[in-house]
Amino acid sequence: MAPVSCFECTRCGHHVAGDSFPTVCPKDSGVLYARYDLDSIRKSSSRDSLAAQPRTMWRYAAVLPDVEPVTLGEGFTPMFPSRQHPNVLIKDEGVNPTGSFKARGLCVTVSMAKKHGLKKLAIPSAGNAGGALAAYAAAARLEANIFMPKDVPIANEIECRAYEANVTLVDGLISDCGRMIGERKEKEGWFEIATLKEPFRVEGKKTMGYEIAEQMDWSLPDAIFYPCGGGVGFLGMWKAFAEMEQLGWLASGSKRPKMVAVQSTGCAPIVKAFEEGKSASEMWPNAQTLSAGLRVPKAYGDYLVLDIIRQSGGTAIAVTDAETIDALQRWAAAEAFFASPEGATTFVAYEKLLASGFLKPADKVVLFNTGSALKYIDVIAEALGRTRTPQTKLPASRNIGGIIGPY
Amino acid sequence: MAPVSCFECTRCGHHVAGDSFPTVCPKDSGVLYARYDLDSIRKSSSRDSLAAQPRTMWRYAAVLPDVEPVTLGEGFTPMFPSRQHPNVLIKDEGVNPTGSFKARGLCVTVSMAKKHGLKKLAIPSAGNAGGALAAYAAAARLEANIFMPKDVPIANEIECRAYEANVTLVDGLISDCGRMIGERKEKEGWFEIATLKEPFRVEGKKTMGYEIAEQMDWSLPDAIFYPCGGGVGFLGMWKAFAEMEQLGWLASGSKRPKMVAVQSTGCAPIVKAFEEGKSASEMWPNAQTLSAGLRVPKAYGDYLVLDIIRQSGGTAIAVTDAETIDALQRWAAAEAFFASPEGATTFVAYEKLLASGFLKPADKVVLFNTGSALKYIDVIAEALGRTRTPQTKLPASRNIGGIIGPY
Repeated sequence: MAPVSCFECTRCGHHVAGDSFPTVCPKDSGVLYARYDLDSIRKSSSRDSLAAQPRTMWRYAAVLPDVEPVTLGEGFTPMFPSRQHPNVLIKDEGVNPTGSFKARGLCVTVSMAKKHGLKKLAIPSAGNAGGALAAYAAAARLEANIFMPKDVPIANEIECRAYEANVTLVDGLISDCGRMIGERKEKEGWFEIATLKEPFRVEGKKTMGYEIAEQMDWSLPDAIFYPCGGGVGFLGMWKAFAEMEQLGWLASGSKRPKMVAVQSTGCAPIVKAFEEGKSASEMWPNAQTLSAGLRVPKAYGDYLVLDIIRQSGGTAIAVTDAETIDALQRWAAAEAFFASPEGATTFVAYEKLLASGFLKPADKVVLFNTGSALKYIDVIAEALGRTRTPQTKLPASRNIGGIIGPY
Repeated sequence: MAPVSCFECTRCGHHVAGDSFPTVCPKDSGVLYARYDLDSIRKSSSRDSLAAQPRTMWRYAAVLPDVEPVTLGEGFTPMFPSRQHPNVLIKDEGVNPTGSFKARGLCVTVSMAKKHGLKKLAIPSAGNAGGALAAYAAAARLEANIFMPKDVPIANEIECRAYEANVTLVDGLISDCGRMIGERKEKEGWFEIATLKEPFRVEGKKTMGYEIAEQMDWSLPDAIFYPCGGGVGFLGMWKAFAEMEQLGWLASGSKRPKMVAVQSTGCAPIVKAFEEGKSASEMWPNAQTLSAGLRVPKAYGDYLVLDIIRQSGGTAIAVTDAETIDALQRWAAAEAFFASPEGATTFVAYEKLLASGFLKPADKVVLFNTGSALKYIDVIAEALGRTRTPQTKLPASRNIGGIIGPY
């Protein structure tokens, strides 16, 4: 594994010591990126040595922070060829531990937290990040304090409780959850690991970029469609492409993909900012969509997402919930692939950009299913008009300790 | 792949032609097993050639029926070392397509159905088999008619509907579902692919036995704990062990494991028959347990399950729902592993057999998590006392075509 040379501010370029567990840039609160001595890694590690590596994201340990991984088998997820569109691959992040791409980021963050002796972690989450933190914190024997909107898909709440995390359901959005943690963290002794407010989650997420390259024989697709809430994976993949270029891992003549950020019409701050030519987004009022992971009214790394969209010649597109559920079911039947609502937004976006001519059928495209549909059964059931009262007879409830906050 | 030499009745030894798609033995309705020319396979295939094979269950194509697989990436699931018990491995079937071990069996059955030109399939299911059939039938473009108890975990119903299968929810158990299919199949032109009423599902399930051996470097564990509903995997693994012995694939001196069938006290026909020294089970009255997959009041292959338990020096054990939910949560927190209720029954059973001295801590044990906990969120939520009304606001429902039967 690689020692982090330094953490570099993505806004002002300020450097923070590589042996620390930093938060954001002390000068301007910009997002920090871990930097490595890639020239040295280029000499010591080759992509050909990957064949002998574990089939998890830790196969890319050469470009990850030096740490003993707290691993649950995350990453190296399959890409399924579409049965409808010959040049489309679906990257299925739903087979990760805790059923979503959030496992990658929280795996690195929790591993580093353990290394640095942190004991109590707190996270604001739209749902899946909370579940992932709960699992990795259980594995690392750390305390997890999870703040989620009270209407998250119920799977997110239940998995956190199963792992015996402390769960607070908040009558608000992820932004309100973050504010509540901010108010309490000093008194409680919590270390806050919110999206992009520490530099390790993006390191975990960048492995998606390495995987796409390796799984496509070190070429890159023409476009990547990514459901964009906080956008960490979007940034992470772009960082991975830059690193791989420096490492000489990409096939000669490889071009970076058009990066397409997909949001919901019920919460589309990035799309709005992109269309208005702005370099940062505004807080989206009354965010609402059944794609729970997209209910992020303002992403901390919005300026990076917008920059990448433009640099890559990509775009940002918003889709409705009705379009999403329609595509979810059409693609389930046509592809035998049951996507999460967030994943299904990329199906809609792909169909729209194909229809508009932005992409051609011959373009090689990767669509991200960021989580398992099984994490959204209550949401999908209601959307399909199939709610029902559970009828199973039950044993006496087990009392669950360690829960704080209002319900 | 191997041509099937013949199908052999497990009860009377009668042979049926290997190029057919049979049901049960025409003489005594016994379960049919596919037989291959293993001496010839022994010469043409070696276990060392597996390294170059795909990382799905089709890596064992040398011992599977000759067919173009309808594949969704099933099998070759990980085994996780327990964090509490150094000699325990948890085989995680929850990462299969549709989130359960049922993918393996239905994959082979649907592949063979397509090969034989069958068009309309019907299945009685306690839940997960229905979901798996729906997915593979969607991939194969076959019609799936699924009969499930009306109180299956809602994920089972929703996944079937997402894949646009025809779903009938029945006010009864899997046995009632089977009866309803029996009454209608001739008129409807359905081919019934109920548990062990055709010989291909067990072929898919046997790959679990091959995987355990390969993943343990061709030795076998001292005991395997398996949640036993219909018992197809239990039979399949035992068949795999016999085949591997003939193929010379097992390490010298390998002994077969003690096979432990785990059931619920709310539906324990195998346990009762085992304890009473009987060779077949009786229909369990008023079967009820939150381990939905164990609500099988009489398994068609009960005589085979009971024979294997005795041959192997294993046992059968029933656990309560309260013990199951307690273990599910304790192991989630201690192992960072969130099991299905059926999987958690094996945790309880292992703890009990360790306490009783039937097994020692030094015994190497494999516990089967047969499905993802995410398929049981409604059941687990209710057991943890955490039900709530979904609060997500929704788009207009999409009307779903092709649904038959009462709700």
